[in-house]
Amino acid sequence: MNSRRDFLKYSGLAAGSLITASAFSGCDASGQCKVSNRVGKGKMKLRFKPYDLQLKHVFTIASNSRTSTPVMLVEIEYDGVIGYGEASMPPYLGESHKTAADFLSKINLEQFANPFLLDDILTYVDELVAGNYAAKASVDIALHDLAGKLTGQPWYKLWGLNAAKAPHTSFTIGIDTPEVVRRKVKEADPYNILKVKLGGGNDKEMIQTIRSVTDKPLCVDVNQGWKDKYQALDMIHWLKEKGIVFVEQPMSKKGLDEMAWLTENSPLPTIADEAIQTVKDVLPLKGIYSGINIKLMKCGGMRAAHKMITLARSMNMKVMIGCMTATSCAISAASQLSPLVDWADLDGNLLISNDCFEGVQIVNGKVILNDKPGIGVNKLSLA
Amino acid sequence: MNSRRDFLKYSGLAAGSLITASAFSGCDASGQCKVSNRVGKGKMKLRFKPYDLQLKHVFTIASNSRTSTPVMLVEIEYDGVIGYGEASMPPYLGESHKTAADFLSKINLEQFANPFLLDDILTYVDELVAGNYAAKASVDIALHDLAGKLTGQPWYKLWGLNAAKAPHTSFTIGIDTPEVVRRKVKEADPYNILKVKLGGGNDKEMIQTIRSVTDKPLCVDVNQGWKDKYQALDMIHWLKEKGIVFVEQPMSKKGLDEMAWLTENSPLPTIADEAIQTVKDVLPLKGIYSGINIKLMKCGGMRAAHKMITLARSMNMKVMIGCMTATSCAISAASQLSPLVDWADLDGNLLISNDCFEGVQIVNGKVILNDKPGIGVNKLSLA
Repeated sequence: MNSRRDFLKYSGLAAGSLITASAFSGCDASGQCKVSNRVGKGKMKLRFKPYDLQLKHVFTIASNSRTSTPVMLVEIEYDGVIGYGEASMPPYLGESHKTAADFLSKINLEQFANPFLLDDILTYVDELVAGNYAAKASVDIALHDLAGKLTGQPWYKLWGLNAAKAPHTSFTIGIDTPEVVRRKVKEADPYNILKVKLGGGNDKEMIQTIRSVTDKPLCVDVNQGWKDKYQALDMIHWLKEKGIVFVEQPMSKKGLDEMAWLTENSPLPTIADEAIQTVKDVLPLKGIYSGINIKLMKCGGMRAAHKMITLARSMNMKVMIGCMTATSCAISAASQLSPLVDWADLDGNLLISNDCFEGVQIVNGKVILNDKPGIGVNKLSLA
Repeated sequence: MNSRRDFLKYSGLAAGSLITASAFSGCDASGQCKVSNRVGKGKMKLRFKPYDLQLKHVFTIASNSRTSTPVMLVEIEYDGVIGYGEASMPPYLGESHKTAADFLSKINLEQFANPFLLDDILTYVDELVAGNYAAKASVDIALHDLAGKLTGQPWYKLWGLNAAKAPHTSFTIGIDTPEVVRRKVKEADPYNILKVKLGGGNDKEMIQTIRSVTDKPLCVDVNQGWKDKYQALDMIHWLKEKGIVFVEQPMSKKGLDEMAWLTENSPLPTIADEAIQTVKDVLPLKGIYSGINIKLMKCGGMRAAHKMITLARSMNMKVMIGCMTATSCAISAASQLSPLVDWADLDGNLLISNDCFEGVQIVNGKVILNDKPGIGVNKLSLA
């Protein structure tokens, strides 16, 4: 783990971009760094720290492989209560420790009277700079955790949701050799639905290998890997015979006409992933996909995700909630919304060996929300 | 006031339609009536009682006049905490003490573990019977009040809103003689925006009369009163010259093509009122109106209204929150959402002489939210 080194590297850059740069003198030996706030009763303090998640297995999807994921751990403190947040930044999405530190350094929470002003604060954060959705999500999550703790309630209760309706989560099987795939399916024994990465050129082999060892329901994620709509439809018909329940991002996010045709003809629901980012992208997908995969790191956090679900439901679209590789912090935040969705893919914390939070549990494959306030996590001493 | 008589009349009918009719034996001397619940720790108890609101002035819109409005006062009690709700039922919307009592008698809250299961409970209430939106709103409001009280927070805070952004409310001037209109404008002195009812055949006289005594911003509500789109556009141009800020429901709710043409050509925003009921009606209005007027009694309550605002904003539509004649109970509930809207028309409690709640205040024309939990009301002994 090199988070201390990264912290030093990026904290310097961050301080350079700050108006209230002197606040950085508060960085302490643990690598925590106070930003943009005088210490004072009733003022929010934002701190952040880089961290690298170690993956248990090399992770391969249609476009790349990797062994670690950089995240930024965020804290917002108010009157002695700390809210936790996290930005998970797989490299292909364009964010990094540096971009997150730059962005977070620009945020001045001191101008807001209290953490309950979620709408004002998150609108300000959203409008501060374009992009930086993972970094924005880290602030959104920390603020929700903080406000939830101040009310003493978990967010699923504040949203009026029934924890018993939290879904089973899928467990992801990456593109690999039959031997590795069979081993991973065995490791996935506690999970009742598996998510299979396709689009790597060996799609039928992947499915046949998995079907040789389990008859569990499967969903597939093609990550834009299929190039021709007719071949895609043929494959979907074949997949339906094999007990697949939906197909995520079968073709390029850019081919809207082809996707609309595929969705109209597909015997399985089609779910947009790369094709959707945030709130403004939901309504234009009507008729193009059957549903959307919402991820906090793409949309900017819990507030945006909640709105996206309202929009998708108003169009009778399916909703899936997904994740990046992340600690139990971001996964527990996403889980607060999970009673609202059809399918969950919230295994990002199960894929890492150095989770520095404990929160939502997966028991017999089902998301189990706890009664803790906010996003329902405890920070471990690891980070 | 004849609420005791009405209560006796309708409680009998309600009991007749009840499966758990024996619960009605709990009706007490004050006219409160326990419905569909055994008394027990951790069970919700629903009670309701008819009440008639006395209007300070005869109220005339394009279609009718009246001097009182029937409402149903609702309480949901859970572990000694009471949430208050209200159904306001102006006769032209088709609900009455009888229909509300029939509907409320069908509700069994005993099956739900606690009031935080808002989504489950309100989905159940919504699906129980078609229509009955005011009666549904009364349950929604009481449940929000109860859940908010159990968290110790007002709903505007649970929704992350800034009370300082609550809008000014308009004050409504009905169709009347110049003399009466001038007197009403003087009574409306504390209000900074007036809502003028048009469509009664004397539109220019109404506006000229008001302009002879005040230069305050005005909005107009035509209640579908204009029949021809060209004349409507001419009138809107004339109104713009007179300082009108928007035009509510200028023509029939049925003429979508005409409305789309009018909205496209109108120099003032057009706001749907009769043309919109609840969540499912928002998306189809894209391009037809510039905005929507949301009323709890039409859409079924606070949960639906909050969703409608999310939908309207995602289409860049304007949002107005309106009301029926109601006590401070329903008005305070609607006010919780008001920091999210462009315009508020929340004067329904100011038009009656027998308000049995105190809650949101109007100070110098502005909606002032208080810090009380839930919907922020106290019940007075009047009812």
